[in-house]
Amino acid sequence: MKNNTITAPRGFLAAGVRCGIKKSGKPDLAMLVCPTGAVASAVFTTNRIVSAAVTVCTEHVKSADVRAVVVNSGNANACTGQKGIKNAISMCVETAEKLDIADPHSVLVASTGIIGEQLPVAKITRGISKAAAKLSNSPKAGLDFAKAIMTTDTRPKQALRKIVISGKKVTIAGAIKGAGMIAPNMATTLCFITTDIAITKPLLSRALKAAIDNSLNKLTVDGHQSTNDTAIILASGLAANRPIVSPCPRYKKFAEALTDLCDDLARQMALDAEGATRMFKVVVRGASTKTDAAKAARAIADYPLVKCAVHGADPNWGRIICAVGSAGVKLNPSKLSCKLDKITVFKDGAPKKFDAKKAGKVLSKTEHTITVDLGVGFSSDFCYGCDLSKQYVSINADYHT
Amino acid sequence: MKNNTITAPRGFLAAGVRCGIKKSGKPDLAMLVCPTGAVASAVFTTNRIVSAAVTVCTEHVKSADVRAVVVNSGNANACTGQKGIKNAISMCVETAEKLDIADPHSVLVASTGIIGEQLPVAKITRGISKAAAKLSNSPKAGLDFAKAIMTTDTRPKQALRKIVISGKKVTIAGAIKGAGMIAPNMATTLCFITTDIAITKPLLSRALKAAIDNSLNKLTVDGHQSTNDTAIILASGLAANRPIVSPCPRYKKFAEALTDLCDDLARQMALDAEGATRMFKVVVRGASTKTDAAKAARAIADYPLVKCAVHGADPNWGRIICAVGSAGVKLNPSKLSCKLDKITVFKDGAPKKFDAKKAGKVLSKTEHTITVDLGVGFSSDFCYGCDLSKQYVSINADYHT
Repeated sequence: MKNNTITAPRGFLAAGVRCGIKKSGKPDLAMLVCPTGAVASAVFTTNRIVSAAVTVCTEHVKSADVRAVVVNSGNANACTGQKGIKNAISMCVETAEKLDIADPHSVLVASTGIIGEQLPVAKITRGISKAAAKLSNSPKAGLDFAKAIMTTDTRPKQALRKIVISGKKVTIAGAIKGAGMIAPNMATTLCFITTDIAITKPLLSRALKAAIDNSLNKLTVDGHQSTNDTAIILASGLAANRPIVSPCPRYKKFAEALTDLCDDLARQMALDAEGATRMFKVVVRGASTKTDAAKAARAIADYPLVKCAVHGADPNWGRIICAVGSAGVKLNPSKLSCKLDKITVFKDGAPKKFDAKKAGKVLSKTEHTITVDLGVGFSSDFCYGCDLSKQYVSINADYHT
Repeated sequence: MKNNTITAPRGFLAAGVRCGIKKSGKPDLAMLVCPTGAVASAVFTTNRIVSAAVTVCTEHVKSADVRAVVVNSGNANACTGQKGIKNAISMCVETAEKLDIADPHSVLVASTGIIGEQLPVAKITRGISKAAAKLSNSPKAGLDFAKAIMTTDTRPKQALRKIVISGKKVTIAGAIKGAGMIAPNMATTLCFITTDIAITKPLLSRALKAAIDNSLNKLTVDGHQSTNDTAIILASGLAANRPIVSPCPRYKKFAEALTDLCDDLARQMALDAEGATRMFKVVVRGASTKTDAAKAARAIADYPLVKCAVHGADPNWGRIICAVGSAGVKLNPSKLSCKLDKITVFKDGAPKKFDAKKAGKVLSKTEHTITVDLGVGFSSDFCYGCDLSKQYVSINADYHT
């Protein structure tokens, strides 16, 4: 069996088990271990309110030698005050004990699930023992990990990239959980990436930040970052490549592969967003600044009426123009243009006749691209969005906390 | 029959007729006339892309002597280029001709409906004749006006206020259409207010701006202003009060009544928003600036997960905290507090035990208040929102343009 999970890069063990946090009885505790020690980096939510796990992980990821990551789903450990912090630390301590890791600071932690409830510590402690006993580098163990981090996700989401760096095979693998919680609260993103590349911590951080900025940070499901969003990368160094110590072409090759992997994960997440049936890319060109381009792209992707139109495969471009007009960006109304894939629907501020049936077909694809030209400059940026369905409302209104 | 329509203030005639723009055959042309001439003011959308009607009306409202307003529903006359402008002007010219108004600049115009299609000018011209022939100051005529401006509104929305100014009875009346279009495009707001107060144009403008800022501009259905949003006020002066020429106590009394009327209209609109079953008020306190308070309130009211929670009557306060945290405002996480009506659910950064059943009952009311204290200052502001239902998705996805 080909391993396309986070245990594919050399040096990683994983596990995913049931510990009883979720009422559904689904797996809810995941563990990732690098016995030889990994260089690590992480990117966190920019929400001003962060979970206890994020607070603790922000400190622990500074460690030069990260050994393990412990994750629970079903409870976000957010808005839980000092007790929440204590519980997040105890998850690291328990994991370190079970795995004979000298320093609990070498253990990272992440949580996702309901907000405002304290973690069921006894259950999690038992779960940690159980996971520690099941650690393996098998594809099944990697898949178990990907499943145990899920909340309202309908399927595990993983990606793999292989590159050659200074003659050595380097593998990068990722698992992600997205857009929705089991007790619906918010769209928490947890992303875990493993690689066997040998690289310094600052360059690993730089590559991760760039990759996330150009993938996950381009994705908007409902316009907000959760209190728990976390992306962690561990590099075991076991590929035995000549270590990357500067932003050389080899660094660039790795960074590009990492961005490509994260883009893959972001797309999978968009398609598995709560109630989503399809996704779309918004490209904004002709902006006076990149910031304006990003702002306009996000305004379109976040606009409920655009999301509904995509859901109904309705080429209702007026909603796109309306979103752009209220995005607060510089634009030239008489130069404004809009395309749905290759079909021009609006050009130089005036509607263009187009085949509505063909345009409807474009919108009913699993993925299509909305391109808007603001007509004022040369900057561009993009964004991923997904449709808004009745199912989204069901998931988020019908289920009670 | 008591007149609670826009023909209640002295000096106004109205009509609402079918002219065939809407495929449904529902009324789609409305006319409001002040034969003795009115002092007028208007507030328009801040969307960078504005309809031809808004462009023309912005000029015409500068006129010192406004005689009529002509409105069509079913077609927004937006994104229609130069031809759209010509058509909007021709609506004013036709109306002026039919009503023997010397200067077409004395006629204001508003449109709402589908974007990107040219107006059916012949139909509208016939509609103008028809409306001109039916003008009346009866309650029925006022109601006909309120009905003819509707799009996906489920009911006409009107409000009336009576005050006494320098011993004279002064009446203020308003009709509004909201949140949704017949061929769904966006939530266009058109608001028409009549009053018989004698007041100068600058003070009327000042009162209207303040009233709209504290009512309609506090309402968010899906976070965007349309290309067509327009609020117009006409003052006939026939109440024969001592004219208001300075921001005196009499001005204040009028301004307060006007704000109260607009608040009434805004609440009616929230409850008749596309698919809405209930509304809520968000009050943000303890902010370091009023701008921050407004920003945080809007972030909460716009957050789809909060809207879904209100729809499901689920006291899921974690979503409120998440929205606040990502609103980009100054806050103190360890002082942050949240109440649902009078029930405290989160205090000083930690969850408070509360009766979930009671809290659910609060959320299932037609209107409740979410109060958030940011814990950093003394500024406050508020915002109105409505729930997000499957019906919203149906209205905006299932219907095709």
